[in-house]
This record gives sequence, C-alpha cells and structure tokens, in this order.
Amino acid sequence: MKKLGLGICLSATLAFTSLAWAADQTPPKKDTPPDLYEGLPDWYRATYKDNVGMNEGSGPFKDYFKPQMLDMYWQPNRHYVPMENFDHAIFIEKERRDLCVTCHEEATPGVVRDWRESGHKNPKSTPYLSSRTAEIEKNTGRILDEVHCFDCHADTKKKQIRMPTGEVCGECHRKQFDDFVREREVGRPNHVQSWEANTIVPWYAEAARRGYLYGQHGCDMCHSGAEKCDVCHTRHKFSAAEGRQPEACITCHMGPDHPDAESYGESKHGVIYHQEEEHFDFTRPLSEVRPGKDYRTPTCQYCHMYEKHGRFIHNPVMKGIWRMGTIPPKNIEYTSSLKDYPYGIKIIGDKIDIYSEENIAKRSYWLEVCAKCHSDRFADTYLKSLDQFMFQAHTLADQAQKVVEDLIADGVLYPDASKRDPYPLSDGIEKMLSPAFLGEPVYNAFKTLKGKFPVVGPILGVYGMFLQQQDNPSTIENMYNRLWFWYKLQGYKGTAHAQQDVSWWWGQAPMMMEFTKIQAEAARLRREAGIEKAAMK
Amino acid sequence: MKKLGLGICLSATLAFTSLAWAADQTPPKKDTPPDLYEGLPDWYRATYKDNVGMNEGSGPFKDYFKPQMLDMYWQPNRHYVPMENFDHAIFIEKERRDLCVTCHEEATPGVVRDWRESGHKNPKSTPYLSSRTAEIEKNTGRILDEVHCFDCHADTKKKQIRMPTGEVCGECHRKQFDDFVREREVGRPNHVQSWEANTIVPWYAEAARRGYLYGQHGCDMCHSGAEKCDVCHTRHKFSAAEGRQPEACITCHMGPDHPDAESYGESKHGVIYHQEEEHFDFTRPLSEVRPGKDYRTPTCQYCHMYEKHGRFIHNPVMKGIWRMGTIPPKNIEYTSSLKDYPYGIKIIGDKIDIYSEENIAKRSYWLEVCAKCHSDRFADTYLKSLDQFMFQAHTLADQAQKVVEDLIADGVLYPDASKRDPYPLSDGIEKMLSPAFLGEPVYNAFKTLKGKFPVVGPILGVYGMFLQQQDNPSTIENMYNRLWFWYKLQGYKGTAHAQQDVSWWWGQAPMMMEFTKIQAEAARLRREAGIEKAAMK
Amino acid sequence: MKKLGLGICLSATLAFTSLAWAADQTPPKKDTPPDLYEGLPDWYRATYKDNVGMNEGSGPFKDYFKPQMLDMYWQPNRHYVPMENFDHAIFIEKERRDLCVTCHEEATPGVVRDWRESGHKNPKSTPYLSSRTAEIEKNTGRILDEVHCFDCHADTKKKQIRMPTGEVCGECHRKQFDDFVREREVGRPNHVQSWEANTIVPWYAEAARRGYLYGQHGCDMCHSGAEKCDVCHTRHKFSAAEGRQPEACITCHMGPDHPDAESYGESKHGVIYHQEEEHFDFTRPLSEVRPGKDYRTPTCQYCHMYEKHGRFIHNPVMKGIWRMGTIPPKNIEYTSSLKDYPYGIKIIGDKIDIYSEENIAKRSYWLEVCAKCHSDRFADTYLKSLDQFMFQAHTLADQAQKVVEDLIADGVLYPDASKRDPYPLSDGIEKMLSPAFLGEPVYNAFKTLKGKFPVVGPILGVYGMFLQQQDNPSTIENMYNRLWFWYKLQGYKGTAHAQQDVSWWWGQAPMMMEFTKIQAEAARLRREAGIEKAAMK
Repeated sequence: MKKLGLGICLSATLAFTSLAWAADQTPPKKDTPPDLYEGLPDWYRATYKDNVGMNEGSGPFKDYFKPQMLDMYWQPNRHYVPMENFDHAIFIEKERRDLCVTCHEEATPGVVRDWRESGHKNPKSTPYLSSRTAEIEKNTGRILDEVHCFDCHADTKKKQIRMPTGEVCGECHRKQFDDFVREREVGRPNHVQSWEANTIVPWYAEAARRGYLYGQHGCDMCHSGAEKCDVCHTRHKFSAAEGRQPEACITCHMGPDHPDAESYGESKHGVIYHQEEEHFDFTRPLSEVRPGKDYRTPTCQYCHMYEKHGRFIHNPVMKGIWRMGTIPPKNIEYTSSLKDYPYGIKIIGDKIDIYSEENIAKRSYWLEVCAKCHSDRFADTYLKSLDQFMFQAHTLADQAQKVVEDLIADGVLYPDASKRDPYPLSDGIEKMLSPAFLGEPVYNAFKTLKGKFPVVGPILGVYGMFLQQQDNPSTIENMYNRLWFWYKLQGYKGTAHAQQDVSWWWGQAPMMMEFTKIQAEAARLRREAGIEKAAMK
Repeated sequence: MKKLGLGICLSATLAFTSLAWAADQTPPKKDTPPDLYEGLPDWYRATYKDNVGMNEGSGPFKDYFKPQMLDMYWQPNRHYVPMENFDHAIFIEKERRDLCVTCHEEATPGVVRDWRESGHKNPKSTPYLSSRTAEIEKNTGRILDEVHCFDCHADTKKKQIRMPTGEVCGECHRKQFDDFVREREVGRPNHVQSWEANTIVPWYAEAARRGYLYGQHGCDMCHSGAEKCDVCHTRHKFSAAEGRQPEACITCHMGPDHPDAESYGESKHGVIYHQEEEHFDFTRPLSEVRPGKDYRTPTCQYCHMYEKHGRFIHNPVMKGIWRMGTIPPKNIEYTSSLKDYPYGIKIIGDKIDIYSEENIAKRSYWLEVCAKCHSDRFADTYLKSLDQFMFQAHTLADQAQKVVEDLIADGVLYPDASKRDPYPLSDGIEKMLSPAFLGEPVYNAFKTLKGKFPVVGPILGVYGMFLQQQDNPSTIENMYNRLWFWYKLQGYKGTAHAQQDVSWWWGQAPMMMEFTKIQAEAARLRREAGIEKAAMK
Repeated sequence: MKKLGLGICLSATLAFTSLAWAADQTPPKKDTPPDLYEGLPDWYRATYKDNVGMNEGSGPFKDYFKPQMLDMYWQPNRHYVPMENFDHAIFIEKERRDLCVTCHEEATPGVVRDWRESGHKNPKSTPYLSSRTAEIEKNTGRILDEVHCFDCHADTKKKQIRMPTGEVCGECHRKQFDDFVREREVGRPNHVQSWEANTIVPWYAEAARRGYLYGQHGCDMCHSGAEKCDVCHTRHKFSAAEGRQPEACITCHMGPDHPDAESYGESKHGVIYHQEEEHFDFTRPLSEVRPGKDYRTPTCQYCHMYEKHGRFIHNPVMKGIWRMGTIPPKNIEYTSSLKDYPYGIKIIGDKIDIYSEENIAKRSYWLEVCAKCHSDRFADTYLKSLDQFMFQAHTLADQAQKVVEDLIADGVLYPDASKRDPYPLSDGIEKMLSPAFLGEPVYNAFKTLKGKFPVVGPILGVYGMFLQQQDNPSTIENMYNRLWFWYKLQGYKGTAHAQQDVSWWWGQAPMMMEFTKIQAEAARLRREAGIEKAAMK
C-alpha cells in the first residue's frame, strides 16, 4: 500500500478538461463575440465564468471555500459585484459620457490623466496608430475617434458599471485576443488557464478552509492574468510599447518557481538591456524590430512571442519545450517511482519527450530567434547544454526521491502517515474526482486510506510548500520539495536565460546542499528508529 | 516558573521613556534652536546626546561597551571627535571661507564639485529656489546668496570643524526638522528614535561585549539616520529632488525586516516607476505633484509622506497602522502566551487595535492617497485584505509559538535552559531596569533565574537572530524567530506593497515551510526525550 | 589520524604553479606576440592552452572528464572546434572580406549591426578614437581604417574561422592585454587564472565523473573570462564605455561567493549611480574622470582599477587585500585547526597578514581613491572597520570549526567517515599530486586512508557546497560551509561596499543563525551517541 501511495500525481481534473476541450473545440470565429471559454464544456463555464459574486469559490472545489474580497477584481467574470454606494445606472441609461471625466477628474485624477495620454484618447494621433485604428474600425464597423470610459466600463444591457475583462478588450483587439486564447492549445502552464491552475489544486481550498485564504493573495494576484489584459498593459494607458518591455513581465515572473526576472535581468542580455534601454525602440511592433539596431539584446517578448518563420504571436507559450521545468523528461532512466510518472493516471499528459517531433520543431524555431545574433552552432550547442542540465537535474531529483521513498518503504518515516493529518482536502478529492478520472489505484488509495498516506514528488507532492497540517508533511518531504521544485527551477531558468549565478548558486549548488540534508535526515531517521527499537524493547 | 519565563518582552526602557517624553514634552518652538532631544528628561540627553567621544557607548547599557570607531560619524552628537592631525582653528577664527574650497578642491574634489552643483552654492538660481530661500532668509534673518562649507561645518564657538547633524540643517530648514521630530509622537519604529532602538536592546551590548561589535556595523549604518539628514539627501548636493526618489529610501529599507525596496520595486507601482522614471518630475514639491502626469505611479514618499486632507509632512511614519508588523493585533484569538502580550510589562504599548478610532482615521487618510488613481472601494478592499493577511499571519505565528511553549512546559526543550548561557546581558538588565519598570514577575524572573530561562516571541525573543551564545537559543527557538520575524515581515510588506511574489514566496510559503520544520523538530525532541528516558533507565 | 585529517587544504597544484610561474617568469615584451601563458612551464600550456577539442578536459585532472559542449566557446584556446557544416577556407584563402557582411547581414543581422555601430567599423570617427587608433597603428605598423570580421576571425595560417581570444585582441590592444596578464603577479583569485581555479579543484572532475557536468555550466560561464575580453566588452561592439559601467561586472560578480552586484548596487554609491547614471560620462578614460562631475559616485572600475598615485590599470585585482575573504588572517588567535592553516602544505600561500608592508601600501592606495570625496580619516576609519569586521567574522568561523572538529575528535560525527564515500577524486589526488607537493602528512592521509576522512574548513572543505556523495559531507559539515563561505563572504562584501543590509542581514546575522544550527546539531549528535550507547548495550 505504501508503495502505491507514493508519488501520486493528480492535477487531473485540469488535464482532463484540457483534453476534453481539445476534443470539443471549434476554432474561435471572428464573427462570434470574444469568449475566453469558447468551446469548453458547460460545467467549465459554470465553474470559472458564471458570476456568483462573493458566494462561492471557483474550480472543482468551489463549494469548499468562498473567495477573498479582492477576487472580485482579480477574477471579475466570476466574482465582480457592482458598487452599491453609488448607482451609475442613470448615467449609463442616458449615455452621459461627459460625466465620467467631470467627476473622475476630481475623484481619481491619476486615471483620467493616464487615459488622456493614451492611444484610447487619441487613436489617430500618429500614422501608425491611425492605420491600426482603421483596421479596428473596419473589423468592428465603428468609428473610433476616441475610446472612452463608457465604451469599456458601461454594461449598457445591465445598466451597470463593469470591470472589463479580456473579452471586452477583444471586441476591438481581436487578433491579440485570439492569439492569447490559443494558449489552451499547448496546455498548462500558460496564462489563459492560470486561474484554473490556481483553484484546481486541493491545497488551495484546504488552506482557505483552514483560515489561510489571504495568504494566497500572492497566488491570486498573478493568476488573475487569466482573464485581464492590464497585467501587462497597465491601466489606463494600455500601452503596446509598455507591454513590449521586459519589466511588463517581471511582477509575476520572478521568485522560486519561475525566476525569470532574476535570470534574464542579470544575464548579459538583461544587463545590456539595462545599460542601453533608452536606445531600445519599443514603439515598433515586434515583427519590425531590427536586432542590433532597435534592440541590442533580446527582450522576454522578442524571444518568447516569436512564433516561427519570422512571425510573432501575441502569446508567449507556444514554443515552450521544458515548460515550467517540473514535468520529468522521458529521456533519462529513473530509479524512483518517477519512472511511472504520472503514476497510472492515464489521462494526464505523460513525461516530456524532448526529442519528440513537436519539440524538435519547436527547438528549430528557437534557433531561428537565436540566429539573429548568434551562430546556429553556438545556439544549438547552448540549448543542448540546457537539455543536458535538465536531464541531470531530474536525475538528481530522482535520486533524492528514491531516498525518501526507501524510507517510507522501510517504515521509518516519522511521524508515520497514519498518525498525522491526511493529504489536503482528501474528503473533497474523493468526492469530486471519479475513478475513471484518477485511475482505479489512485482513486482507491484516497477512498480507502482517506488521504492517510505520504505523497511525494511532482505534482501533488508540492502541497508541502503551500500548507503545513499536523505533522504533514514531515521535514524530509519538504526538503525534497525544495530540491525538485524550488532549486531545480532556479537552475532551469538560470541556465535557460544564460545567467550563470542563478544556474549555479541558486540552482545546482543548493540542489546538492539540499541533497546533503536529505541524506543526513534519512540517516538520522534510520538511526533513531534503530535506537528506539533497541531502547523500547 | 517556566510558563512565567516564556515570551518575556522587554524593550521596556524605551517604551517607558516614550511615555515619559509624551508627558513632559512641550511643543518645539520656532524661536528655540532646533534640538532633537527637546523636551526629553535630562538622563535621556546624557545617554544619547552628550558627547563622550569614544569613551563609552550610548543607551541604557552604555557602560557595557565602547562604540565602534565609525560611530563618530554615524552618531556625531555623542561620539564625534575633531580631527587631530590638522587643526582648523585658525581658519575658523579668522573666518577664512576662501581656504575651504582652495584646499578641498585638491583634497576632496568630488565633494567640492557636488556642492558647486547644489542649491547651497546657488540658492537663488531658479524662481522656485529663490522663493524658498527668501522664506529661510525671513525666518533666520540672514542673507543667503551662498550656503558655504563654513556655515555648516564651522563650530565658531569651539573653533572646531563639526560634523553637521539635523540640528544644524534645522537652523534653516526648520519646517522639515520640526516635521521630522514629530515622529516621536507616534513612537517606535520611527527614524528619529532609531539609534535608541539600536542601543537599547540587550543583545547589542552583549554582542559588543563578546567581541562582535563590528558585525553590528550594519545596524549602526541605518540607525544613524536618527540625527543626520544625509541619509536621504546625500552629501554634498543635499537635493530635495533626490530625497523624493524611491531610491533614497532603499539602502536602509530592504532586507528581511523591512523588504520595502524589494516589494515596492517589483510591484506594478515600482515597475512602472522604473520603466518611466525619466518622465517623473522630482523637482516638484510633493504637494504639487499631479498623479498620472508628474508621476504615473506613486513613490515611497508620495504615499508615506502624505499626511491627510491633501497635506504632506516631512515624516513618513505618521499614518502607520501595522507599523513594522511585529506587534500582535488585538483583533484575533491567541492560544499561546501571545494572548498576554506584552507579558505583564504594563508600561509597554499594548497590542495593536486595527479598529481603534485612531487607526480607522489613519486608514481613511491612506484611502485619500489611493483614491488619486484607484476607486475607493478597490483601495478599501485591498487594504482590508492586508488586514486579513496580517490576522492570519499572526495566527500562524501564534500556533507556532504554542508548539515551542508546549515543549518548554513539558520539559523537553533541549538543551535545558539551566544548562546553557543566560539571556543576553542578564546581569545588565537586572541592574539597569527596575521592578516598577519591568513589572514584578519579569523583574523577579531575571533577578532569581539570572536569565536562565527561555525567552520566546516578540520582541525580546528575537535576540536569537542577532547573537548565538552557548546553546542559547536552541534551534527550534530560532526556527520560530525566522517564522514570525523574518518571513512574516516579508509577507507583510509584500502584501502591503502589492508585490505578490514577495507576499507569497518570501512570506506566506516560507512561514508554512518553517512551520513544517518547527513541527518536525518538536516531534523529534519529544521522541528523543522518550527514547532517552527508556534507554537511560 | 582524525586530527590530522581535519581541515586539509589542497588547492595546492595551483598555488604551486603560481609560485613556479613567479619564479620562471620573464616580463612580457611588447615585441613578442601576446601570450596568456607566457613564461609558464610547458606542462602548464599542455594542460590549459593546447587545443584538444572535445577529447579531454583541462587542468591537472583533465583525464578524468571530457569538457561540456559549450566549453569550445568558453575556453576556445583548448577546446574550440571549427565548424564542420560550412567550410570558410576558400573565403579566407581568397581574402573575400566582402562576403562576411554580405552573408551575415542575413544570417546574423544583430551582430553585423553591432559591429557597424562600433569603433571597429569606424576607428577614426572621433578625435579621441583617432588618437587611440593612431597609437595602435604605430605599434602594429598597420593602417586601420576599419577593423573587419576578417581581422579577428580569420586564422589565415590554418585557413579556418577562429574564435578570438584575448591574444587576438592583444595584438592591437597590447597595453590592456599586458595589464590584464599582470593579474598573475598577485595570484588567485584573479581573472586570468579563473579557468585554472575552475578545473583544479578535485570536486569539479569528480562531479563531471558522476554525471553533473552540466550543473557546472554556471562555473564555466564566469570562469571563461580567463581568456576572453567579451566578458566585459560585449560582442560585437567591444565598447570601452560599456566596460566602464558597473553593469559590465555584475553577471559574474553576484551571488553568495562575491555579492558585489548586490552590495555595490544597493549601497549609497550604487543607488546614486542608479539615480544619476544618465549623467555619468563613460566615454572618458578612467584617468580623466572628474569625481563629482563626470561621476557623482564611484563605479566598480573607478575604485578597483585605480592602481596608485593617480594611475589606473586595466586589471582590477592589484590592490586587493582581503581578496575573496576566504583566507584566514594572521592577525587573530585561533582555537581550531585554522591556527595551522594551510595545514602543513607549506607550498601554499600562508594566512593573510593585514598589516604586512605590502598590504599597508595597498591600503594607502585605497585611501587615495576614497579621498577623492571623503576625508582621509573617514576613509581610514571605514576601512579599519572592515578589518575589524573580518577579524571577528574569522573568529566566529574559527569557533564554529572548533565545534565540528571536537565532534570528530570525540568520534561522534555521524555517519562516520569510514562508512561514507571518500573525499572527491581521492584516487586522482593521490595519483596527480606528489608528497613534495602536498606535504608528507597530507599526502599520506590520502594515500593510506583513500580519502576516507572528514575534511573541514578552507579551502578544501568547501567541496560540500558543490557535490554530495553518499553521506559525504554530513549535514553539520555543510552548515559550517555555509557559515564560513556563504555568509561570511556576504558580510565581507556588504561591509566592504558599505551596504549595511548585506553586511548584517545576509552576512553577520545568518552567520549567527547558522552557528545556532551548528551548536544544536553538535548537541544532538552527542546526545544521540549517548543514547545509542545506552540503548545498544
């Protein structure tokens, strides 16, 4: 039983729905209104889109927690509640556009000034803007001499102020919207499903249930990028040029799980950007940027939004190969239960095959970008080095997982799983997820053991970094989490972004040092069990 | 006895003196010369202001250590010693102003060039400067066509070169000085008392006594801001515009206890500042800044120096509610001895009541600032989320403190307090602080146990992050320190400054991970005690 | 035996060769071609310079590992392999300079545009450039109206494209090259020997042998600065102005072992640089920079490339006193085996004497730089504080080392060295290094114990931060590594660069907190040994 319990990986609902979505979907059409959840099953919409205000959460475990207050702004589709202290209905009904600015010039002057300096206020102020505006006018059949508060914020049907989501932006900016929604094609991790990722993990609801809802504020703030455009193009300028700057990414893309700000920022690419940024021309669309002239080094956007064959796409995840760095590759030998990843749950995407046809094609698109400045061979050699780094990082993680699994198999993990709190939300998992969905063995483990077994490894084992329950996880389980999740991901991004210190000192070296702790803890647990047995007899 | 010893919180002398000061004070008058210690008792001045050169330290434990050499520059009022290798007396006596520049153009050319480009060299170079200079001329009755080295550095009474302190600056810049001194009104943490905070804690003197004086260099460099203006307005430009930039704050306001640089810098506010800083107009006084136009996002100064009703104050602590984030709030239930905080020392400020009349008023002033750009409701919702975050962070800290206290109560903390070094400077504490001051039980604990008891929790328990003595603290006590002091404060500032990664990955998540360590260590200590008992019988 | 094993310090080969080199060397002459390894013994060249492509590694343990693929770019002298997919021979033979740009304008446009904007494309575009070019023309006897791809990349002898190293650059930029090579005079750590440092340590080869070659990517990327100039003057602009900016240093000079980016960047010097960088004039040679006017605060280069008496040198290590901060000073008392540092290996440089004649002279050159802006006394006081900080940091490290050594001496380190993997590459150490070289006792320890003994302290003990083998090192050994290597070095640079938070919160405070862990771990190991003895009898 112990063996079976090890390394269970769930994240299953989402994987399932991704597949389901892939099967059901019809390509979004320009003549249908923009819809972030188009083509998805109805239950999906009922879980993520339908507005419930502050009554229940979102995701499969929505009944187990209520949203935090700010979620009305982070996830307005589902949680926004119109203001009660001031009813804008009459202004909307009478279309008193003039009053917005009149009042808000006093009430929130910063916003009004932002807008005055934006392309929305003057959509034809430059030849370039004019040509883009003309396109939008053609597509929408509207004359756009000014895009006004009213156009985005007035829900004329409900006669309410609304919090605009990407769907509102997409009415005019349809190409960008459609590009963005295509993130679903490659599956998570991506932006468009980040709220799903946020709420599907059982520890999120469990933490909320245990009173740590506001600690998750941090999660929610980034993952709110799922349905809002102002994460990159900030209010109320909504500038394309701003979105092209690396800084647009970094408020989210930093920290242990994706240290992009740190690794790009301190790489030679990032350092040169910093030294010369005033000479970078961010007003040019990416497709017209001349490397070495408009940009001396690449930005996040230049590499990640390059699609292929000279084309750019408003979506940075299409070329991803290693993705977040958490899914083990097929291309190495495992000694731990990672060899059975994803642990019999057949419906989840399998290990990554770095050498799949799809990934080989993606790599060739990466080389197209690199070759703007580097020799083909250098770029190819560099990226192969990254693969090698990842193979050995996953190998090291495998060795560490084996140490922990052996402890469990030998019955010396302390405290024993039977004497500690169950896996987070075990009651909910059993209720919300079916045997067909989880695979029989995993479903049965939750059903019969009620979550009273250790769960180690990607993805489900990561709960230990998010929630501590009574003696669960134990300290060695969390050491291992730090190794494979925290440090491996630092090493990954450090290497991928050519930042040597992040690669080594925040990645590979701490992996080794954490492995020291894991070995020492395992040795101590075995020793203590031996002494205890001798002393207690 | 053990229970009594737990969580003793001292910081008492200072609290006492704050109150004392509040009672004694008369409002500073413009016709008295600027005095940082005006209205304070005489013993206060004898401890913090009276110059003793390098003979003794400062603060209540001044006799237990001598200052480090640099303290003559960090704390010139008390420790400055005029240069011996070159006597400037004759130049001062004859008022040879010309010689300063003549010699220093060679000796320290950078300083002279800084000054030449400063408002001091040309106090009437712009209409704005002229008008400010005219005010100062009126207030001081002096004509100011140039503010010269001599004016600040020459102590004409003693015929010595002096190291100017805020009191010298305050002769002309009296409004700024008076605003700054008002920090005493709200009590610590603040700038004007930061040197007091530095030297009042017993571990500072103990560390010095044990030979770690220069490790405290770091403490001293920030806390020297207590009496010098060049911490924000650097020599020898002393520019107001420089002091309005966020960078002016960050050399001190970073790191685990107040990660302001990190959290603001990587928030959307900070990122937009960084992207657009060349368009920010720092020459304007804060009160004339037009949000969205002169500043697209707020700076440290804009929010924290906003007083209320449109007024700004040269003092960033007046609106503080959660302050440093270390004092527990009244508004939650405690299970540990935190419920008795501050542990019977009645003279120290009690728990923070977030919903006190004063704090509700402060919150309304915060909302005034936020509403320059955000809706009232958004701002209010955001700040309430911060409160919720803090409530749950303190709740988690309480749970962790309970784990440690239960260990102590059950007699399984190892090594036992009786077998390790006493609490830092226990001899000094007993001598310098009275029963009336500490409260009888705490005073008696120090008196009878000679510091041989564990001290856990805010504020006194934090000694473990500053000094390790023989087996004191033990490792679980320091784990708890990391949780409540280091990680909670990261989570606090990450949330307060809307930087999600700091809030989560450097705050809430590490709190949880540290709680894992604490539970595991507690479980091990109990197990070991059990085995030991069985084996040793 | 145990005692003897402690704290063995090897790094011996390199030390030996440094001395050897010092003995053998003849000063580089302008009329000999630039040679990075001039004056070194033949075996040296055979280990570090002679091209072997991808067949073997470099350094004394070169036979134990093959290089990683990228090493052909990091260390081209030894590992570069010409491209096979495209033979440039015919273009080189016919000197078809025109074709380079014609093709690469398409193939790698960024590079071509970089070059077009460089001084190489237009070496006479300004009066200043013209005068420098005229000098080079005079020295080389060549007319330089354009420095073309061909001039650096075409190996006309071998008719191959080459990867230019410093020796190629040195043909024209001889003074810079000669200055750089002078780094050997002061010994490691320096730039010119950084590849040697990389590959001489036994754990590098051992890690490679165990499959962690690509984890060392991070090491290799920085240490490749040994023979290439584009680490600071990036391709293909090769700008002197770029190399004068602090950012040029930071991709390497960050992280736990030399947190220069962090400590300078967040010091007042660095912050003012950041605030005012657009007013810094980096086009001026360092020797013509006017402090306070061209630079308001110093840059890395301004202080570290200042040689003495107003002269600057293209080499930042000449004035170093504390160097990397790892070598213990002579000037304090030790209780651990640090007192015998370097552990009887007489051929390695001894402890640092801060007050040696040489170091006193170096300090006076530092004071010359500081005095551009600061008073002599302030600068002297500050730097003496740094010394004091370092004395106490080394004292603390000594105390911690004593705790670990006492454990070993008392036979309670667990697991026992006899039961764990040997010291990395013990087989190779014994084979490649002679008794004369290691000293008899150390050589014998490796010979007879086959690496089965604990190695604690600088320098060899640091292996634990780079490689975990089976139970080697144990966790307390790595705690100590973190204390003396990681945290001490943070404290050092934080103090040296006047960044108080780095000094304290990333340096002194974590040293104390790590000491807590070490004491607790030692106490636990003793307790466990006692219980085990009682229980097992």
